[in-house]
Amino acid sequence: MHAESATRPVVCFAMSDEAFRTAFDGATLDRLDGFATVLRDDTGAPLLVRDFGDTDPDVLRGVDTLLTGWGSPYLDAATLGRFDQLRAVVHAAGSVKGIVDPCVWDAGVVVSTAAESNAVPVAEFTLATVVLAAKRFSRHVAAYRATGDKRGFDESRLQHGSNGITVGVVGASRIGRRVIDLLHVLDVSVLVSDPFLDAGEAQSRGAQLVELPDLLRRSDIVTLHAPAIPATRHLIDDRALALMRDGAVLINTARGSLVDTPALERHVVSGRLDAYLDVTEPEPLPADSPLFALPNVVLTPHIAGSMGNEVLRLGQVAVDEVERLAQGQPLRFPVRASELTHIA
Amino acid sequence: MHAESATRPVVCFAMSDEAFRTAFDGATLDRLDGFATVLRDDTGAPLLVRDFGDTDPDVLRGVDTLLTGWGSPYLDAATLGRFDQLRAVVHAAGSVKGIVDPCVWDAGVVVSTAAESNAVPVAEFTLATVVLAAKRFSRHVAAYRATGDKRGFDESRLQHGSNGITVGVVGASRIGRRVIDLLHVLDVSVLVSDPFLDAGEAQSRGAQLVELPDLLRRSDIVTLHAPAIPATRHLIDDRALALMRDGAVLINTARGSLVDTPALERHVVSGRLDAYLDVTEPEPLPADSPLFALPNVVLTPHIAGSMGNEVLRLGQVAVDEVERLAQGQPLRFPVRASELTHIA
Repeated sequence: MHAESATRPVVCFAMSDEAFRTAFDGATLDRLDGFATVLRDDTGAPLLVRDFGDTDPDVLRGVDTLLTGWGSPYLDAATLGRFDQLRAVVHAAGSVKGIVDPCVWDAGVVVSTAAESNAVPVAEFTLATVVLAAKRFSRHVAAYRATGDKRGFDESRLQHGSNGITVGVVGASRIGRRVIDLLHVLDVSVLVSDPFLDAGEAQSRGAQLVELPDLLRRSDIVTLHAPAIPATRHLIDDRALALMRDGAVLINTARGSLVDTPALERHVVSGRLDAYLDVTEPEPLPADSPLFALPNVVLTPHIAGSMGNEVLRLGQVAVDEVERLAQGQPLRFPVRASELTHIA
Repeated sequence: MHAESATRPVVCFAMSDEAFRTAFDGATLDRLDGFATVLRDDTGAPLLVRDFGDTDPDVLRGVDTLLTGWGSPYLDAATLGRFDQLRAVVHAAGSVKGIVDPCVWDAGVVVSTAAESNAVPVAEFTLATVVLAAKRFSRHVAAYRATGDKRGFDESRLQHGSNGITVGVVGASRIGRRVIDLLHVLDVSVLVSDPFLDAGEAQSRGAQLVELPDLLRRSDIVTLHAPAIPATRHLIDDRALALMRDGAVLINTARGSLVDTPALERHVVSGRLDAYLDVTEPEPLPADSPLFALPNVVLTPHIAGSMGNEVLRLGQVAVDEVERLAQGQPLRFPVRASELTHIA
């Protein structure tokens, strides 16, 4: 074995067939082969481990980099003991919660996630929704369809346009931060509320840190990017909704549990608020939900996240991380053990 | 008269009541008062000229800056003769065609337009549409509403997502250029076709200049930004549409006459193409048009352009131009006489 091969990562995939197939195309796998040795099955295809217990211990022993994804088996202390060389877990999906036990960090294994690239399509979808919601898109589509009249919805009834409006970002999560950055392509003011963000960091991103009630009162559009944890369940309840301005818009591309659905129903059925909901509680909504038929509500079936070619970005980012390991560079998206407790 | 007031513009508004009311709010007018003298009527409000023939000649004589907008009377040679001091026409709207005669330039009057700021909302709307169209937004909305099932539309049937796709921009107009710039917030490749653009300028904007047929063949999403002139009537006809890929998307936020509607109907009724149309021919569409009911077509009633607070941007930009004149600076958005012939 010559010196060069000593730093060549030995990579094993541990994820579902579907996760592998959707996140890794030929171009990405070819690139990985350029700087890493990938364990293969009898057919020559990359080996996909779905259960560490079922896998030949000799195979695992030499692996130093585990490439995980959706459907990956849980890496606990007992499993960790089956690896001799493991130094990195590179997760080609979002949260590593449910993928790795905290003991992994204690063993000196570094962990990386492609969650940042999972944030890309959600943030883009949110930006697009802000632009269209500011135009009262859904009301115009519904009125034009119902009346055949271009001015079927009377513009003068509600504020139109995004020039100079205030957008409130609830939660400075990965996605929330990316939304704030993208909003700067528009001429809008940005408010942000997040118990873990400091005013300086908000300001450096061009946003003003405020308390949630203040954000709700001052925003023309409120967009949710908080994690779904017990503390955020029904964060947007009747009282919160009542603080929102007449004609304001609620966008939820995060998690359905953040919003009290019956309360929201009251505020949108009356026409006081508009809502663009990619996630709901329950999800899907019952087929007879009044939300389906309202001109001021758009329901999309959880499509903001990575789909189709956007899933390939997860594989691309994961392979970038393995390349950094091969070159002895620090990971771009490291996960710290302490993050496990307050991420979604 | 002391020296300072010699460079203080004397401004007269010439536009419709509605144009004035929608484009100029109190803040913008206060700013204008800071560096210009605005002609006023008996009530103290800014004088709005709708007909130069009806206006007291003494009033016009001292005016050096005409602030025009929608509903502005036409400035021809005879009218120009009524002004002694006119040096600038600042148009708080889009095209100056129909507002000023070419003789205005011969008389040494400079002309400015707020068309650039009118391009802002259209470009933003187009970006938003690209993001949602790439997600097959309309198909998911329709299927979720019809079935109550989150996966009512089978994702595997069509490409989803914007990562790595190709967007073709037809027409490097003001709006087209702005769309190209905005598309760079996404991970897309951009093609552009325009008979008046050179490859170097396209490249400097991060786009590849190609012929229209090539653009149509290679793009996942085609967005129209050409002017409505005789040469572009039905630019997108049956032959052009047939060149587009199966599953491709056509976006039209420009003018209805660019597209042969019956031809487009055939390609979208079959489900081969998706379409997001803010403008159509005829406009509005007949109420029984099949386009209203298709899950792969979104019809908006000409809302991409400036609306509501976006119209205020026109006044803001126009007042910025007057401020530049007051400070002896060059105009930011000058219109050349030669542009009158090939602008929409």
